[in-house]
Amino acid sequence: MATRPDTSAELAARAAELIDAGRFIHGRGWVPATSGNLSARLSDGSVAITVSGRHKGGLGPADIMRVDADGRPLDGQKPSAETLLHTRLYRRYPAVGAVLHPHSPGATLVSRLFDGALVLEGYELLKAMEGITTHEARVVIPIFPNDQDIPRLARRVDDYLDAHGDILGYIIAGHGFYTWGATVADALRHVEAMEHLFELELRLHGAKRP
Amino acid sequence: MATRPDTSAELAARAAELIDAGRFIHGRGWVPATSGNLSARLSDGSVAITVSGRHKGGLGPADIMRVDADGRPLDGQKPSAETLLHTRLYRRYPAVGAVLHPHSPGATLVSRLFDGALVLEGYELLKAMEGITTHEARVVIPIFPNDQDIPRLARRVDDYLDAHGDILGYIIAGHGFYTWGATVADALRHVEAMEHLFELELRLHGAKRP
Amino acid sequence: MATRPDTSAELAARAAELIDAGRFIHGRGWVPATSGNLSARLSDGSVAITVSGRHKGGLGPADIMRVDADGRPLDGQKPSAETLLHTRLYRRYPAVGAVLHPHSPGATLVSRLFDGALVLEGYELLKAMEGITTHEARVVIPIFPNDQDIPRLARRVDDYLDAHGDILGYIIAGHGFYTWGATVADALRHVEAMEHLFELELRLHGAKRP
Amino acid sequence: MATRPDTSAELAARAAELIDAGRFIHGRGWVPATSGNLSARLSDGSVAITVSGRHKGGLGPADIMRVDADGRPLDGQKPSAETLLHTRLYRRYPAVGAVLHPHSPGATLVSRLFDGALVLEGYELLKAMEGITTHEARVVIPIFPNDQDIPRLARRVDDYLDAHGDILGYIIAGHGFYTWGATVADALRHVEAMEHLFELELRLHGAKRP
Repeated sequence: MATRPDTSAELAARAAELIDAGRFIHGRGWVPATSGNLSARLSDGSVAITVSGRHKGGLGPADIMRVDADGRPLDGQKPSAETLLHTRLYRRYPAVGAVLHPHSPGATLVSRLFDGALVLEGYELLKAMEGITTHEARVVIPIFPNDQDIPRLARRVDDYLDAHGDILGYIIAGHGFYTWGATVADALRHVEAMEHLFELELRLHGAKRP
Repeated sequence: MATRPDTSAELAARAAELIDAGRFIHGRGWVPATSGNLSARLSDGSVAITVSGRHKGGLGPADIMRVDADGRPLDGQKPSAETLLHTRLYRRYPAVGAVLHPHSPGATLVSRLFDGALVLEGYELLKAMEGITTHEARVVIPIFPNDQDIPRLARRVDDYLDAHGDILGYIIAGHGFYTWGATVADALRHVEAMEHLFELELRLHGAKRP
Repeated sequence: MATRPDTSAELAARAAELIDAGRFIHGRGWVPATSGNLSARLSDGSVAITVSGRHKGGLGPADIMRVDADGRPLDGQKPSAETLLHTRLYRRYPAVGAVLHPHSPGATLVSRLFDGALVLEGYELLKAMEGITTHEARVVIPIFPNDQDIPRLARRVDDYLDAHGDILGYIIAGHGFYTWGATVADALRHVEAMEHLFELELRLHGAKRP
Repeated sequence: MATRPDTSAELAARAAELIDAGRFIHGRGWVPATSGNLSARLSDGSVAITVSGRHKGGLGPADIMRVDADGRPLDGQKPSAETLLHTRLYRRYPAVGAVLHPHSPGATLVSRLFDGALVLEGYELLKAMEGITTHEARVVIPIFPNDQDIPRLARRVDDYLDAHGDILGYIIAGHGFYTWGATVADALRHVEAMEHLFELELRLHGAKRP
């Protein structure tokens, strides 16, 4: 599928947002050593996503590629191994326009300290998350075991969502977390709020195994 | 009330100071994910304050609006939900020219670890606060419960001030803190000193619930 | 004493070094909220020192003044209250050309956790300090009680040095630390190494009171 | 041995990479106070390495020198005392093109908390290391005692490698760590991943001596 001029302009715009998001996320230490991946959906249903192995803190336009709605490359480059985790979210949530996946220390340590899920409640910062209007909310961030078999991991996420309903993000144990939003800015707001809250919980409950 | 030319110049000056303050505060991780709000009083009694929902680390002139002394918008934009907390301070303290409200990790964790108030004493850095000239001072930072009913929260603050006299800042539990000064620079000095001291107290007394 | 042209050039050079040092030190969070002070000796024996109350992370040439060898202002500005601590070091150590005083969290917390002195040994980074050539060194950093009476504090430091011999720096409890070097760069190297080691010791021994 | 024009261009290219690497590593606090050293191999077998005593966060082209494959200076400057640790790695591993040695807090504290080696397993970030394709890997980072006798320390490293086979990096106790890669970018990816993992392990197991 050739890239039409207006798709090119849209791709360039989303790529610029992802590049800036990557720079900020890396500046905070949340995508070390080429880890993580970032994507945004285009209006034709294709997805702009970071090329595999590129350093997410120093991205350029050549480091953002296009895949179709099923994650197949549209421009000959190698997408992230976890592309399926992005495309499954776009399929499930028509309103979602961006998915960001940091490999952050907060998420990684939370997964070593908490079992099954992290429950966030009582924080004013919960109101940074879509749909939350009070600190007296209860946000559940499920923690899934890591798995190199990505389709199997994606099915696990789907099964959870089918059983438990919508969530705002999820953690993969020893790995990082996924969150999303209508735009890259919204998804980045979720990234910042969640990692901030992960760190607060770690400091409150200690980061030492008992 | 139309904005006269000299008010426009003053608004632009205060806005520039708030924008820089926001960038610094965000660089330290103290206003994550669009949280927090920052204001400065103009000589006509109106208040320049951050527009609701804007990211305080990446503000531009369009993200600073004007409200009157009672917090009512003067330019059609949506002010912070907590505007009343700012205007109440301006009303009580004629010498105060700026109010800054970070959602910092130090303040948030202090509120989980300390009950009712945090007492700061013995630190040379206390001398960064208005009116303190020795480390042998005792500065009480009250901690109020969070409340989505802002008028009720504002009354709680007012009642405390009426009962206990002047303070240099206060913490809202699980939320952040408010401090102020004659200028944006003075208020920012208080922000920096207080969060620094909050973190010292946390590290001294641990950030783990018993 | 009028400032001769070559003194002016030397003052400008030292001021530029102090300005850069302040920016770096503040970027690390070691001189919050206008705290700290920085100085360098000029070849005529006068001292370039930060003006009282200026933010050490955002210094400009107007924020650096000159005092004589006894700390008396030479240009009508207000020097740091702790100027005497600088001039006493210049008097004792003819080879010292710069004195830096951060209000760092590491030094402040060390003073709450250790009594009388912090002993640093076994670290390769000790070799960053003047005269140390092996990690099998033992560097004693005395901790003096804070005191608003600066002449009394200066006498205490002098008495210690008379009794114990030369040191590489000292901590003032609940306040910060002083260190020095032949040049601003050398003094800054000491600042960076010491605060780094203070933090290592804190993390090793915990920052919680028993 | 005179530097031929193409060697000069290659030296300039490697130097630029090392300069950038140093700036990033220092920005993270991993080469404080002139500590650490960084090198890259040139196609003629000589090595570009940081001059002794220069601050690794503020390197310029004049701070990068050349040594031969045995570590002898080729341009009259003073190489790092630890040059032999670099050249031994280049000799053992023909594919290695860069060796980086930070003096990081993570590595230093790990060496105080763990005996003989740190074993990293279960982390997705292990996949940032050369040859690792799953989080279900087990990466051993040996910890060698520090030693001012560098030839003796180099022999210890060689003996370990002869006995245990290839490793991805090693820690020198109370000092820092060494890692390497085919290019400066690869070595830097290892630096970032390893220090990130060292910090995770410290936070998990506490940085307090029992």
